[in-house]
Amino acid sequence: MAFWKNFFKNTQAANGPNNLASITSINSVLLVEHLENKDQLANIYISLNDKIDLYDLEKLCDAVGWVRRPIKKVKVAIDHSFLTASLFYEKNQQQQLIGFARVTSDCAFNATIWDVVIHPNFQGQGLGKALMDQTIRYLRHADISTITLFADPNVVTFYRNLGFVADPDGVKGMFWYPL
Amino acid sequence: MAFWKNFFKNTQAANGPNNLASITSINSVLLVEHLENKDQLANIYISLNDKIDLYDLEKLCDAVGWVRRPIKKVKVAIDHSFLTASLFYEKNQQQQLIGFARVTSDCAFNATIWDVVIHPNFQGQGLGKALMDQTIRYLRHADISTITLFADPNVVTFYRNLGFVADPDGVKGMFWYPL
Repeated sequence: MAFWKNFFKNTQAANGPNNLASITSINSVLLVEHLENKDQLANIYISLNDKIDLYDLEKLCDAVGWVRRPIKKVKVAIDHSFLTASLFYEKNQQQQLIGFARVTSDCAFNATIWDVVIHPNFQGQGLGKALMDQTIRYLRHADISTITLFADPNVVTFYRNLGFVADPDGVKGMFWYPL
Repeated sequence: MAFWKNFFKNTQAANGPNNLASITSINSVLLVEHLENKDQLANIYISLNDKIDLYDLEKLCDAVGWVRRPIKKVKVAIDHSFLTASLFYEKNQQQQLIGFARVTSDCAFNATIWDVVIHPNFQGQGLGKALMDQTIRYLRHADISTITLFADPNVVTFYRNLGFVADPDGVKGMFWYPL
């Protein structure tokens, strides 16, 4: 897995087709090509606004222990998301969904990122950062000025390292609960 | 203005057509009927997902000193909002937009409230609370479980009184800024 770590560390400075910084309009980005893993070649790529297999997504969410949600309602949520970002691991022409994020937006000013998930077997390799980088890039390309999210305490530092600021100018994220 | 204050204080317990608590599916709610104001009768009502006059909205936002936004982009944002809530003051068959809020959502799980504004001449009378009450009621009726917003420091208490909680379980509202 060390190769990936190096890859993502160096990706900002890299040249060639894998240079994320050079991509302005993107639908699918190859992150790692011909990764050698147990003598087999594998690719990892991010796909934006691609068709989502809801059962693959459920399996991914199960893997990180999220509470199950009605699959029909998940479909509605995805259909009404401004952006979905899927991360795939591809080997022997078979692909596995290993990461996901989605965004709600008014398509003009504001966007909110929800449901960011990386499969436990693929965490800690910079793939979450790559997924968020592409998501932010897409939103900036769509001229969305305010990109927001609600971060659990254990991922605040992760998002801070990506350029997110908690409570800027004292603005508080608030959730409604019945009184 | 004291009449309104009393009206909104008592509205939860009131009976009859003005009883907000009894309304489950709503598009337009009369808040104050036949308000006597300088010997003229006036009504105040909230209208949900009604057609928005963008220039009236701009005038309202100017009145509270918000930075102007391109009107075409405002139209896109409104067209892609899940809900708009407008507050009107009606006198002599003329209506004035005196309050506004809008919501983005995935139509299933999450909603975020944006651009809450009450005209300065009508603030402090419970109209903001009434606007938010109707917004929350609509979202609950649509079976949206997570209702969120980002509150400026000076309105955190206002939202807290409506049942919003800041940073529940340490969840932080975060905004992205370029690194």
